[in-house]
This record gives sequence, structure tokens and C-alpha cells, in this order.
Amino acid sequence: MSKEKKSARAFASDNWAGVHPDVLTALAEANSGHAPSYGNDAWTARAVERVSALVGKDCDVFFLFSGTAANVLGLQSMVRPHQAVICAETAHIHTSECGAPEKHTGSKLIPIPSPDGKIFSGDITSQLGYLGNEHHVQPKAVSITQSTEYGTVYSLDEIKRIADVTHRNGMYLHMDGARIFNAAVSLGCSLEETTRAVGVDVLSFGGTKNGLIAGEALVFFNREFAKDFEFRRMQGMQLSSKMRFIAAQFIALLSDDLWKKNAGHANRMAAMLKDGMCGFPGVTITQAVQSNSVFAILPADVIPVLQKDFAFHVWNQPKSEARLVTSFDTEASDVTRFCSLLASTIGVKGTA
Amino acid sequence: MSKEKKSARAFASDNWAGVHPDVLTALAEANSGHAPSYGNDAWTARAVERVSALVGKDCDVFFLFSGTAANVLGLQSMVRPHQAVICAETAHIHTSECGAPEKHTGSKLIPIPSPDGKIFSGDITSQLGYLGNEHHVQPKAVSITQSTEYGTVYSLDEIKRIADVTHRNGMYLHMDGARIFNAAVSLGCSLEETTRAVGVDVLSFGGTKNGLIAGEALVFFNREFAKDFEFRRMQGMQLSSKMRFIAAQFIALLSDDLWKKNAGHANRMAAMLKDGMCGFPGVTITQAVQSNSVFAILPADVIPVLQKDFAFHVWNQPKSEARLVTSFDTEASDVTRFCSLLASTIGVKGTA
Amino acid sequence: MSKEKKSARAFASDNWAGVHPDVLTALAEANSGHAPSYGNDAWTARAVERVSALVGKDCDVFFLFSGTAANVLGLQSMVRPHQAVICAETAHIHTSECGAPEKHTGSKLIPIPSPDGKIFSGDITSQLGYLGNEHHVQPKAVSITQSTEYGTVYSLDEIKRIADVTHRNGMYLHMDGARIFNAAVSLGCSLEETTRAVGVDVLSFGGTKNGLIAGEALVFFNREFAKDFEFRRMQGMQLSSKMRFIAAQFIALLSDDLWKKNAGHANRMAAMLKDGMCGFPGVTITQAVQSNSVFAILPADVIPVLQKDFAFHVWNQPKSEARLVTSFDTEASDVTRFCSLLASTIGVKGTA
Amino acid sequence: MSKEKKSARAFASDNWAGVHPDVLTALAEANSGHAPSYGNDAWTARAVERVSALVGKDCDVFFLFSGTAANVLGLQSMVRPHQAVICAETAHIHTSECGAPEKHTGSKLIPIPSPDGKIFSGDITSQLGYLGNEHHVQPKAVSITQSTEYGTVYSLDEIKRIADVTHRNGMYLHMDGARIFNAAVSLGCSLEETTRAVGVDVLSFGGTKNGLIAGEALVFFNREFAKDFEFRRMQGMQLSSKMRFIAAQFIALLSDDLWKKNAGHANRMAAMLKDGMCGFPGVTITQAVQSNSVFAILPADVIPVLQKDFAFHVWNQPKSEARLVTSFDTEASDVTRFCSLLASTIGVKGTA
Repeated sequence: MSKEKKSARAFASDNWAGVHPDVLTALAEANSGHAPSYGNDAWTARAVERVSALVGKDCDVFFLFSGTAANVLGLQSMVRPHQAVICAETAHIHTSECGAPEKHTGSKLIPIPSPDGKIFSGDITSQLGYLGNEHHVQPKAVSITQSTEYGTVYSLDEIKRIADVTHRNGMYLHMDGARIFNAAVSLGCSLEETTRAVGVDVLSFGGTKNGLIAGEALVFFNREFAKDFEFRRMQGMQLSSKMRFIAAQFIALLSDDLWKKNAGHANRMAAMLKDGMCGFPGVTITQAVQSNSVFAILPADVIPVLQKDFAFHVWNQPKSEARLVTSFDTEASDVTRFCSLLASTIGVKGTA
Repeated sequence: MSKEKKSARAFASDNWAGVHPDVLTALAEANSGHAPSYGNDAWTARAVERVSALVGKDCDVFFLFSGTAANVLGLQSMVRPHQAVICAETAHIHTSECGAPEKHTGSKLIPIPSPDGKIFSGDITSQLGYLGNEHHVQPKAVSITQSTEYGTVYSLDEIKRIADVTHRNGMYLHMDGARIFNAAVSLGCSLEETTRAVGVDVLSFGGTKNGLIAGEALVFFNREFAKDFEFRRMQGMQLSSKMRFIAAQFIALLSDDLWKKNAGHANRMAAMLKDGMCGFPGVTITQAVQSNSVFAILPADVIPVLQKDFAFHVWNQPKSEARLVTSFDTEASDVTRFCSLLASTIGVKGTA
Repeated sequence: MSKEKKSARAFASDNWAGVHPDVLTALAEANSGHAPSYGNDAWTARAVERVSALVGKDCDVFFLFSGTAANVLGLQSMVRPHQAVICAETAHIHTSECGAPEKHTGSKLIPIPSPDGKIFSGDITSQLGYLGNEHHVQPKAVSITQSTEYGTVYSLDEIKRIADVTHRNGMYLHMDGARIFNAAVSLGCSLEETTRAVGVDVLSFGGTKNGLIAGEALVFFNREFAKDFEFRRMQGMQLSSKMRFIAAQFIALLSDDLWKKNAGHANRMAAMLKDGMCGFPGVTITQAVQSNSVFAILPADVIPVLQKDFAFHVWNQPKSEARLVTSFDTEASDVTRFCSLLASTIGVKGTA
Repeated sequence: MSKEKKSARAFASDNWAGVHPDVLTALAEANSGHAPSYGNDAWTARAVERVSALVGKDCDVFFLFSGTAANVLGLQSMVRPHQAVICAETAHIHTSECGAPEKHTGSKLIPIPSPDGKIFSGDITSQLGYLGNEHHVQPKAVSITQSTEYGTVYSLDEIKRIADVTHRNGMYLHMDGARIFNAAVSLGCSLEETTRAVGVDVLSFGGTKNGLIAGEALVFFNREFAKDFEFRRMQGMQLSSKMRFIAAQFIALLSDDLWKKNAGHANRMAAMLKDGMCGFPGVTITQAVQSNSVFAILPADVIPVLQKDFAFHVWNQPKSEARLVTSFDTEASDVTRFCSLLASTIGVKGTA
């Protein structure tokens, strides 16, 4: 996608969406005079409180610029270089961060084959055969993505079982929550129920994909790992000098259930999109639609026709599988226009 | 400064200032529908053009979140781990980035004693005695800060001489331009004259300290170093997914001479502050005031009185030396109030 | 194998063997007075010549302590951190170096499933789908092991095809030659035919497993990668101060065809072992025996009986698969004693 | 010294010396049949006992190839990347390891000016001004070299005071003992008195410079830092597969007081050399001669004449300062020949 063009509204990714208006308003309100830099300001304190109130007390919260950084610096807090991180083969940390975890932590990732973006407790134990053997990296963290890179959502029980086996083997659980809000809404659970209550030790808590400009947090439920994190953040080039402007975005998102409205809307749009796509000849929905994306095999010659009007990614070229992502600002009319175009394109073909 | 409080307007740092209103307006304007992520959008293209137009054509421009990252990833592009970076002992990369350059590049910094934040061409040649000796790191880059951490400004000739000796010895010149705008205004030069024209190879081009929320750029005049930089940026956890919102900030700053107005105002406020502080008993201005900061020795018992109303840093506790920084939003009345308080505090003492 | 005991002669690994007597003699001869340190001595010069004479002129040769270091520092010369190394899932660099490649190069390994320790040219092209995409690491090197970790040996044509696809795609070929002598003897080829002539760019040239105390070399056929290697070796903690004693070992090994005698003997012992094990009920040879190891499934209850007299590794516990390695000092009587014990143990069971 | 030639016996460095005959004999004796690899052998167990017996019980001992590795991996065990190591500006880790500490630990070194190779407790406290400030690296280890790079030797009291201030400030003490034997002999103390008893936490215990081929140990008196060290050693490319041959060298060195004889002899030769050089016009001994080296200013035109017969390093070219190092195999006749040549060269000049 080297020469992408702007599109009114697309299904390319939830990071093609802009910013929720309430977030912009919050930025303007935070722009009042001087404030201490590097997070020693009132907005940051308030945002930390707001996050804690939602995910569960007794945690440490740090704001960062980037979701990749949340994952990488979170994992760096959990493992030493000779230790390893077990994750799904489909995990963003493994496939899409240009090797940042390895570069920054010095550690190895151990990817587990996964058809639907999830791993299971049994996958984990099968990787523990070389514990104590100096020739082999030593698994010390497990990282799962919620909701997954395939739009699927772990049930609370699935995570509990992962957390159990992880902790029983002296390891710790990281959750990449780039789309944690979509997952919580999908499960009908609070953020605390979705994270701390099921055994997560360290959480990448992502705001950008749910309507912020750029704002991520790292939440340590296991506070041992938060020790010295302010230094890792600075050395990790993720300390915002005017941090109040990240904090203000989070305050807006976590006020008046905005996070829930945004994520819930995106999820509903995905469900609507899936329903609208079903039943056409040559169209197969390939993953359970549980959050804000739809993966579907489409007829190969239909894809370029659709892409003239709607940007989206072909996830798997040989399979002709597309990924369609909805966001807080997707409109029902976007979905119906897309489905109409799909219908007419396939129909035209059908009658040709 | 562990328990800093918000202050209406302070002299603590130019990153205590907020955002220029035009920048906020630009953010709102950029928030129109969907746009390709990761910099493949129209705003980013326009911002790159704007930067190039000001610093000189035939360069490569990349936007980043953080100034530390601009320095670190810039240097990582210039040196391999066995090579070294010569810089002033006072350089931000050496003193204030929590070891990020060493951690990320694997390289050593070679700090040169500097009373005023500058280094000179002779300092550089004296570090080249071990070229070719495998036991010693090999200097390959020189990094200077313009304006310096002490508010001083290199003359164009000083930089040219540094660039000459740097290039003659097979090395390359990095400029940490966290306050490049203040320097250019101070010199009465264009940005191109201040950077590319005097031999800079790689420039950290800082927006945050001149009125942005958070926005930095890395400019490669030596385009060899830009090769593969998109990967280093991603792996360096500095690729903004909604990059249009960094780009829009830069477009505002680089339009209608806003950069010049902001930096010029800050510089004038520093000059006014210096003038207002001169002549009091026990007050010594310790550095040439050439950009937007004033370094001054103040009577030790006066400092806490001033800090009740005005946040600022004690730079050197044993010397009782303070650093006062002005910014785009410093008002003349801030300066006069500060100087009045200084006068009355010292005066009260004087008559006591 | 936490409480291993000394055994007269074992099949545990070729690094359980001692040192060839000629190598000890060479050490004593090199111990004459003072010599320049760090490789500036006459032995090192002669050893470099000897290596070059055997693997092909116009190369750069460096001596190191460890085979892992040869692999890691060789790869570090070939890739930058955002680039990746394609290798077999069974490769020593991937399975048995405790993550040293990732820690030191900052790069990711891309392992390819391999039942017999080899990869094929088609495996490589399938990993090139994301070239140019900044979210993904960029394959830049391919690493193969010759002979492989499973005792199999690539044919010259197989390597040529790998080298072709590697070079055609702008990548470079590394060969882990920890057992390169066994491979060359197995192929009936010269060392040059086995390495440089088939397209290898960088070769880890291992002496330790063929009768040295500790001595490895790194050979750069692509001399671009040798640039600055003396610094990488020093920074990589692999510069021997009394290097003449590594060099002297290599001179002995590469004189009078000692390398060929040692490796040829080990290979013959493996063939003899395989022949002696065939045909017993419950015994299955699982890999082609092409160099100096035999992989075989053995009856599970037989293994502990054999291990009372002969140390060897159970490679795959669930499959009851053992690895038996021969070395330069394995004696025919070791093989016949082992096979007799195998026979009697299985026989006893058979008649029980 | 790019084209160094072999010399019968030189004063260039103690690593120009060969191997003590007892060490070669021990190697031959260890070459008996097979032994478990990677240190699971009887020689390694015995060598560990021998080291412990001499430096003090209740420690963990690991053998390595290289002294640089002992320093680097020792420090890596003590500090995380955002922490720093305080050392003398003259320390080998700072000047002569090609940046290996920074590359491998990710940490910064904080060098302290030192005219004689030593640092003092007051130097350390002056570096602690930024503890707790996230912008600054956090000193966590102090590293001293005993005997120093200038041949001087810390008194026990000097080290105790360093250890006290180090520990009182929550830091730990590393000793680079590349020449620890020379120091112990110089002090007339046991190895335990010289290391553990004065508060050393981690000791690089160097054998190579005292008559081994290549053999170093890392000793953890603070056993917390030894946790997982077997993985750091493997990942650090310093695990010898045939470790018995490093162990056997140490057994020889630590038997029958060989270490004391070797180091004592070297120290006596240095004292004799100093005495022989004193009093000549233009010759100034610049450092206290307390172990096995002599630093001296020599007339600039005399140096090349001497170097025709005796290799040695000009340490400081502008000062015309030479370093002369003695070793276990220096003979009294080497010293007298050198002093005669010095006399005649200066004399010839004097009468010219």
C-alpha cells in the first residue's frame, strides 16, 4: 500500500479513523497555562486515577506514545535477555513490530501456531521442556492479545486457564490490549473483569485505536515489574515532556463511558458488516466476528472493484482473504454502501 | 523536583508551556474522516515538503514522537556499535536521556568538557589518537546541540569548522536541534543556513519546545543514512499510526512564520529577563544569553522565595545557579513580576 | 543431564572427546618465548594462510574462542537489527545458543520447519512476502548448517540452489560449519568445493569438534563483511590475547591432512555404528547417517541400560529417539561393545 | 603496533609471555578419554573448589575464555540497562574493551579522572547527585582494577572505604582482577584478604596474564548475582564445550603456590627494572611500581633504539612515557640487558 490515498471512511484499520471530538475538546481544555512536564501535572494524576478506577486498584500506570512501546517496555520489565516470551504466531509483537521486542529486550519470542489468533494453556506447557538447560532460552512470560489480531475474543475462562498454567510454572502474563475496549464490550464485562481479575500481570492499555490521537498506557498489576519503570520509559524514548496532553485524552476516553460507546459502536458495525456480507456466493467469513473486524474470503476479481471505493487490506493474498476493520466513526451507511457494492459486483459477475 | 505543582506561567522549561492555538486549530482541521495510517497520508506529505522547503531540498524527513528518539535513532543511523559519538559533556544525549543512546546504538559517547555547552574543532581531533586500534571505540559521529543546553548559540563559522574537521576525518555531523528555531532566530539566519549550509549531516528537528503538543522530525541531509530508516523508526517504537496529527502540527508551525514568531518571542523574553536581573547584588549571569534561557547565580536564600511564585530549576546547587527558560507564551508581565519579586526579595534582605 | 559422569569413551557428543595428540604437541612447540599478542604473531599469520589455502584464496580469516561466537559475530557482520536471518527450525543458532543471536545482533531469526535439518530454496522464497514493509523484519541472511544438527549433509547442488535464491534476492549465505570437516569428507570434496565454490559468503569454521581444545575461525569470502570485523571481535569478547595458541592448534589440524583423518574416522565409526544397530527389533534409524552421528529410535526400557555404560543424549523423549555421536577418538571396539550391549539388552528382553 | 615482530622476551605485556610448563603438563594430563562437556566434568568441579578455597567459601565460580568477558558478564549480572557503572577513567573496561560493556549491558560507564589508576570513596559520592531522577542513569556498581592499569595497588583500607561507600549507597563492588595475583603478592595478603574480605561482590579472576593459555573466572561473593549466570555465560558466547581444559589450567596455577611464584617473580622483575632505570638523565619513573609494570618517561630519541631489541609500548606519546611490563618468565638477564642498553644509549648521547 505504498501510495495510499485518503478515503472518506474506510475499513482499512481503526487507526485510519480520526479522533473523537470529545478528545479534541479535552486537549483544548488542558491547554491552560504552564504545567509541570514529564507527568508531574494534575491531568496525569487524574488520568492515572481514572485508569486505576476502571482496571482495579493497586496497580501502577504509565502513559506512553505507542502501542508497540507499551508491549516492548512491558515485556522488558518482565524478562531478562536469556528468558523468552511465549505468544501466538499471529501476535502483533511477533509479526508486526519489526523485531522491536527482540531488539530492545534481547529476548527471543516463542511463537505458537494459531489459526484464530488465540493460544491455549496446553500450548504453553509444551514449550517448557528445556527449563533449566543453559543452552536454551527460558520462557518467563506469556503474551496474549485481547481482542486478538483476528478479531476473536478470549473468554474469561480461557484467560484464567492460561494465567493458571503461566503462574504455576513461574511465569507471568502480559496482555496486549491494543483493542482491550472492544474485547471488554464484546464480553459484556468491566475492564477489571477482563484484565486483572483473570490473572493478567502487565497490560498494554491502548487508547489510539479507540478514538485518541496517540495515547497508550502500561498497567502493572504485578507492581514488582513497575519498579524502576520510569527509567525504562525514559531510556525507551517514551517519556512525553508535555504528558498532560496524553493524560487529557485518556480522561476524555474514560469519562462518561466514552470508551464503551466507541468500542461498542465499532463492534456493532462489524457485526452488521458480517451480516451484510453473508450468503453471497464466493464469500466466506473466516473468523468468528467477536469485536471490530471481519475476516472474509472474497472472490479474487471482486476485491479490486471494492477497493476503488473502500480501502481495506488483503490479509492473505493466496487465500483471497480480506480484513475489514470498523471503528468508532464507522457509519451504518458505510456498511450498507459496502454491502451494496459487494452485491452488485458479485451480481454483475453472476449475470455476466 | 519530586512534587512539582502547576504554575500559571513558569520559567521551569519550555516544555512546561502548552500548545500554540494555531496548532490546536490545525489538529481539528486534520480530523476529517479517515486517512491512511503510518504516514501515507496527505498531511504528512505536505509537512515533509514544508520542512524540506525550509531546511534545504534533497533531504529525507521523518516524523517521530520524541526528541530523545530523534537523537538516538539519528545516531543509530550514523554509527555501528563499535563506533563512538563525540559530544559536549553537557550534551542532552550524554546527561539527560537516561543512557538511551548507549542502550539503543550499543555505542559509546565520548564527552568533551565544556563550560558553555559548546565544543570546538580542536576538541575533536584530540579524540582521534586511537583510530584503527581494535581495543578502542572508533569515533564516527560528532553531535552538537544548537542552541546548546546552556542557551548559547554556535556561530555559523564555529559549526563550519566543526563540520570540516569532522568530515576530513571520515566522520559525520549530527545536530540536536531541540531548540533549532531559537538558534536560527538568534543568528538571524534561515533554517537552511543554520543547518545544511554549515555541514550538518543529520538534524534532530524539534517542534515540541516551540509550541507543539509532541512532534519531532529527523532530517537526513546525508541521504545514505536515511536508507532503511523507516525500519529503524518502526523498530525504535516511534512510528505514529495516526501520523497526520503530528504532521498537521508541523504544518501549522512552519506556516506564516509561526516558528519564527514563537522562537523570536521566547528569545526576546529571555533577553528582557536577563536585563531585568542584571545589577542586583549577588546576581551573576553565568552564560551568554543568546536564545531562550538565562543561567544565573542567585543568592541562596532568595531562590526559595522566588520559587514560591515561579517554578524554575536550580541547575547547580553548590553554585546556587539557576536556569530560567522562556517560551512562546511567556508574557512580558511574567518577566516584570519576576524581576520585581527578585528586587524586593534582595532589597528586603539588603535593608534587613 | 544435570549429573553427568565421566565415561571412558561415550557417544554423547564430539565435544566430550579430548584433544588430538598432535594438537597438544603443537601447543608445546608454540610455547617458545614471547610473541606479540592479539594475533600479531607468526603462528596466527601462518594459520590464516593455511585456512585460506584450503577454503580458497581472497578471503579474510579471524580466530575466535567459540563456535556460537563465530555464528553470532558472523551474522552480526551481515545483518542490521531490523533485518532477519532465515534458518532451519533445527539450527543450532535457533535452538541451542540461548538466544545469543538475538541478544547480540538485535535481529530476529525466521525458523523454517525441517524434518532432517535442511532447508530448501523454496522455503526461502516463501519468507520474502513482506520485503519493503516497515512493520516486518527484512530477511537479509540465510544460515545453513553443514553437516546439519541431524547428521545429514547438504549436497553441493542443494547449497548452490540455496545460494542462488539467496543472492538473487539480495541476501547473503552463512554456513555454520561446526562440523564442516565431517561434511567435506562425507562429500568427498575439498573444503573449498564445500564452501566458497557453492556460494557461501561467510563461514563459521569449527575446529573444536574435530580434535582441538577450543578454536574456531570465521571466514569471510565476501570481504565487505570483514570490514571492521577486528572491532566486532574485540567488542564481542572473542579476541584472544595469546592467539598463537589458537593458531597453533589450527596449524596442526590443517597439516598432513589431520582434519581429514579425524573427520573421516569419525564418519566411518558412525557408519559402523549404524550398521551394527540395524535390524534389531524396536530399533529404527531416523536420519540418513551421512557424517558422524546416528539418530535412532530405541526401545524405551533399553535406553537406561545402555546409558549405564555409554553416555548419550535422548534427543526426543516422547519418540524415544537417541542421538549417538562419534568422534576422532572413537574406537571400533567402542562401537562393537555398544552394539553387543544393545543386542544382549534387547535379546534378554526378547527371551524374558 | 601494526607490524609487530616476535621477540625473545619483551616488556610489551604479560600477554606476550607464553604458558608456564606446569600448565601445559596439566593440559596433557586432562586429555584422558571422554569427559562431560560444558563444565559437567571432574576437572571443573575440582577447579571450582580450588578457587573457592583460596578466595573464600560460599561463592559461585564460573570459568570463561576472556578477561573482557569476565568484566562484561560480571557487570551485566549487577546492573540493568538504566543503571550505571562508576570506574576510573583509566579502567580497562572504559578504555580498552572497544565498548563491550556498553554494547552488552546497555549501561553507561561513569569514568572518574584518575592520575594513578585508582579512584577514591569521595569520587563515588560525588556521582550520586541524580539518584531517583529518571532523566539520568542510576549508578549501581563501582568497578575497580586491582592491580590497576598503571601498576599501582590499592591498599586494603582503600578498598574497604570504597566498598563501604558503595554498599551504603545501595551499590555493589566489582573488581577487575586481571592481575589480582600480582596485587595479592604485592600486598603480602591471601587472595581472600585481597578480595572478599574487603567487600568485593563480584570478582574477575584472571589467569591468562599469570601463565595460562587462556583462562578466566568470574567469582560471585554476592551469590544473588550468580543466579541464572549459566544462561548469561552461554548467551554471552563464553561457555567452553571442553571446559576441563580451562579448569586444568587453573588447577595447575592454584596448586603448589604456582600463582604466587609466578606473580611474585614478575613483581620482583619490575622492581629490579625500576631500580635499574633510576638515576639516568631524562628518565623519570611516573607511577609507583607496586606490581609488575614500570611507567617511565624516557628521552624521545632513546625509545626507538631500545625498541629495536625490546618490544614495549609507548603509553603516552606526547609525554614520551613508556610502559614496561614484566611477566612470570622475565629473566633477570632481560632486565640487566635492557638497563645496559638504556645506559649505553643515554651515555652515547651524553658523550656525543
